[in-house]
Amino acid sequence: MEKLVLHEDPRSGNCYKIRLTAALLGIAVERVAYDILNGETRTPEFLSKINGNGRIPVLQVGNRFLPESNAACWYLAEGSPLLPESRFDRADMLRWMFFEQYNHEPNIATLRFWLLFVGERNLNTFQRGQIPAKRAGGEAALAVMDEHLAARDWLVGDEASLADIALFAYTHVCEAGGFRLNDYPAVCAWLRRVAALPGYVPMEAD
Amino acid sequence: MEKLVLHEDPRSGNCYKIRLTAALLGIAVERVAYDILNGETRTPEFLSKINGNGRIPVLQVGNRFLPESNAACWYLAEGSPLLPESRFDRADMLRWMFFEQYNHEPNIATLRFWLLFVGERNLNTFQRGQIPAKRAGGEAALAVMDEHLAARDWLVGDEASLADIALFAYTHVCEAGGFRLNDYPAVCAWLRRVAALPGYVPMEAD
Repeated sequence: MEKLVLHEDPRSGNCYKIRLTAALLGIAVERVAYDILNGETRTPEFLSKINGNGRIPVLQVGNRFLPESNAACWYLAEGSPLLPESRFDRADMLRWMFFEQYNHEPNIATLRFWLLFVGERNLNTFQRGQIPAKRAGGEAALAVMDEHLAARDWLVGDEASLADIALFAYTHVCEAGGFRLNDYPAVCAWLRRVAALPGYVPMEAD
Repeated sequence: MEKLVLHEDPRSGNCYKIRLTAALLGIAVERVAYDILNGETRTPEFLSKINGNGRIPVLQVGNRFLPESNAACWYLAEGSPLLPESRFDRADMLRWMFFEQYNHEPNIATLRFWLLFVGERNLNTFQRGQIPAKRAGGEAALAVMDEHLAARDWLVGDEASLADIALFAYTHVCEAGGFRLNDYPAVCAWLRRVAALPGYVPMEAD
């Protein structure tokens, strides 16, 4: 495998997904840190060289650049036990990863970012007005996960997959966004299973 | 392959992605229609049997159910020329599909839904207040695509892939959401290439 460099903000759960995938698979990844609160991913150099969408994480593979956290996890894990063997289960794993980016991250990660890093008093009126909808959307996403996990150990099949890693990242720190994990007992039990995986590394900053 | 049934709303671009993928690959898919404006995907029966997340499309494979449009496209296309052969390009294809669900669809598809199907006068204050941010977000997504496509025929590699299908669905009808396609000439040329693919089928309702 070519040399891997993760362009990241260590506080980001999206970046943590990639580090956790690499750790579980024993893959070495160098790290370069950017401060998104200081606009370091919106500089002309970052936009032209690393990601025209102005976002981290970006996984650098040799001299090529791969944005989008879940795509980077896929790149690292293809051919490993973190991808299910059956065709349906692989697609079902992607189903949960798209659910994560559409229903979970924009609500749960955004509220954590606003409340923990920006600070509620620094939010503008537009952001403040979105809080109730993001609270309801995040609670609905956690409820979907809790119902699904009530009868199973992992989101897909009988083993941990990228679906679990993708949804673990922001779920396990969701209380920083004002969510109550104790309302979702099956989710809590699943979080403990993920944290017990051999090779697990914690998210340094939350 | 087991019998395939697409649970859909024919007006939805997310559902169209799956029909277009199936058509390009010559795969037969039965269709069952739901009216999302009448809450037909929020009934107790739909939630318990088809998708607890209350959304379409859902691809039924035998007696299993696969939500999330891009995951369903992956299921249909695995092993076909619509998935790139190289490991990096497969992940890069997923990168554009996650970009579609995070940066493109929530802005461009939502504005089309609000303006074309709900009607601007029927929007509530919260929805109305989100229009400027969704307009800016959608324009930024189209600009990222336009810059990327200025020097290439397809989003990934040298052939059409699921990345093109996923982003074609709502891009080609974005003017119904108030976007101006003529501002993005490389996107316009790419739309014509997608529409010229052998087996292409149009989106019936827009």
